[in-house]
Amino acid sequence: MQDTHIALAHGNGGRYMRELIEELFARHLGNPSLDVNLDAVALPLAARPGELMITTDGFTVQPLEFPGGDIGALAVHGTVNDLAVAGAVPKYLTLNAFIEEGLEIAVLERVIASMARAAAEAGVFVAAGDTKVLRRGEGGGLYLATTGVGLRNPDIHLGFANIRAGDAIVVSGPVGDHGISVMLAREQFGLRGDVRSDAATVVGLANVALQNPGLRFMRDPTRGGIATVAHEIARVAGVQVNLEQTAIPVRDAVVSVCEMLGYDPYYLACEGRVVAVVAAQQASSLLASWRGLAEGQGAALIGHVAAGPSRVVLQTELGGERFLEELEDDPLPRIC
Amino acid sequence: MQDTHIALAHGNGGRYMRELIEELFARHLGNPSLDVNLDAVALPLAARPGELMITTDGFTVQPLEFPGGDIGALAVHGTVNDLAVAGAVPKYLTLNAFIEEGLEIAVLERVIASMARAAAEAGVFVAAGDTKVLRRGEGGGLYLATTGVGLRNPDIHLGFANIRAGDAIVVSGPVGDHGISVMLAREQFGLRGDVRSDAATVVGLANVALQNPGLRFMRDPTRGGIATVAHEIARVAGVQVNLEQTAIPVRDAVVSVCEMLGYDPYYLACEGRVVAVVAAQQASSLLASWRGLAEGQGAALIGHVAAGPSRVVLQTELGGERFLEELEDDPLPRIC
Repeated sequence: MQDTHIALAHGNGGRYMRELIEELFARHLGNPSLDVNLDAVALPLAARPGELMITTDGFTVQPLEFPGGDIGALAVHGTVNDLAVAGAVPKYLTLNAFIEEGLEIAVLERVIASMARAAAEAGVFVAAGDTKVLRRGEGGGLYLATTGVGLRNPDIHLGFANIRAGDAIVVSGPVGDHGISVMLAREQFGLRGDVRSDAATVVGLANVALQNPGLRFMRDPTRGGIATVAHEIARVAGVQVNLEQTAIPVRDAVVSVCEMLGYDPYYLACEGRVVAVVAAQQASSLLASWRGLAEGQGAALIGHVAAGPSRVVLQTELGGERFLEELEDDPLPRIC
Repeated sequence: MQDTHIALAHGNGGRYMRELIEELFARHLGNPSLDVNLDAVALPLAARPGELMITTDGFTVQPLEFPGGDIGALAVHGTVNDLAVAGAVPKYLTLNAFIEEGLEIAVLERVIASMARAAAEAGVFVAAGDTKVLRRGEGGGLYLATTGVGLRNPDIHLGFANIRAGDAIVVSGPVGDHGISVMLAREQFGLRGDVRSDAATVVGLANVALQNPGLRFMRDPTRGGIATVAHEIARVAGVQVNLEQTAIPVRDAVVSVCEMLGYDPYYLACEGRVVAVVAAQQASSLLASWRGLAEGQGAALIGHVAAGPSRVVLQTELGGERFLEELEDDPLPRIC
């Protein structure tokens, strides 16, 4: 492929599109399941595969590359992580790429290569894909959509319905790194800092959590952050969620930026963390097993579930209480 | 939901997004498989489901609504049809919506309602979805990506490898309607006409074709039209494809517009047609069974496969021959 930038003809179904798919997408993402000549492909599954699980996500992060990740890694991790926190073993992905005319092919190639590394890390294969080219000015460089297919042991029953008053709430590491890293990469406010996105697979964290007999529920706190996960728990399970400000791990650099710009770190996206609800007496064993993993070093017990109205209460550093309201404004658009 | 237009806050993971998803997407697309509170959902399958098949497609058609269809119906039909021509029974879809800030919610609602009708027609359920909001000016109103999951009887073996010299090539109806209908809807050239898109499910056509013992291969000629399908057959199966100009059904209105603008109808997208390769002696029975369906009334035998170099030869009306080259330029961008 001799071009340096994406042209409309790369999306027309003809020779340029075929070359782009063969020489860039398939070269990096190729695997025995991916056949670029087929309309639909068969997914080989074991004879008794368990429950088939599916999830999907769109990605529009700006800029496309940021410290600790890029839109390609994010698209793989985000979808894989949704399967993992649902208790499934991620197996296959499909990929849609909406590419803006004029995007540098070198950037696209770095992003797709990064996707391939993230997929290998999580043990998933890209089974099908499609590309569309958007006219110059009608896209943000690149948007991705991924659908993930996984298999779940039918004996695993996680969900809001399992959550009980008294349960503990734990998080696998510091929150807000992804949101702040992307915000800093935009260089909008003349701020600099060395916060790296936490974008990573949570398959390892989910696997050890699934061994814990007290595990009730897991979620990855992406858009809307841990405050939004806490709200979902409160609303769907019909409970009060009490979080302790001093217990929630937030890096100093993230706190500084949040203080300067008036952000609340509890609403910022993470892309490699897990929030779990676990029976109180099993919380310390879950924390111990997470801390045994490199990606779970910063795991912490951050709150409890209580009987009460559906709301989220933050016990502040100074001993007060404030409600964490459901997110309305968008503090940081285009974060994932 | 009281808003009339999409705002950035509809994509932030908080209350506005939840309301948009609950009151618009889930209200139209709701079904027992769709649970908007879950990260990933289980897909109920029969105990011996056959082969699991997957496909994915992105949609960026402009304008969003056109005579005979809209981006929502197209997104369902396009993905369902890729499963159907691969011999699978379509079962589930996932949906990603990239919505531009400022889009009228009434338009979005019409498109999603149309998706729901198309899904019901094809017998598929939307099992998972995600929405992202793009900043004003960074999207074409609405982009959709759909992934389809279907099941295939393991005794069905379609594919390029089955194609033999002497096989017949048939199409289920007139070509180019979709491309011309969308082009006219843009009102770019001051042209008017009453061409309606052929956007429709091909599940019925595929089902009767699968009963034909001579069926070798099916494809829906979308981007790049029947010329591109002919090229794929020639290139992947390593054969010469001979098409007869006088046999290829094209509506008069489509011919007129093509002549005025210099388009070749064989490269224009269809969204409800099937091209099939079938053993020569079974071609007439396939045509008869297609013509027995409302959507197959215009079915025609359009050419044959021959031994020879990988190329596509059009026998012209005047008795000459010309090569149909692989598509390079994009005659009509943003057609699907």
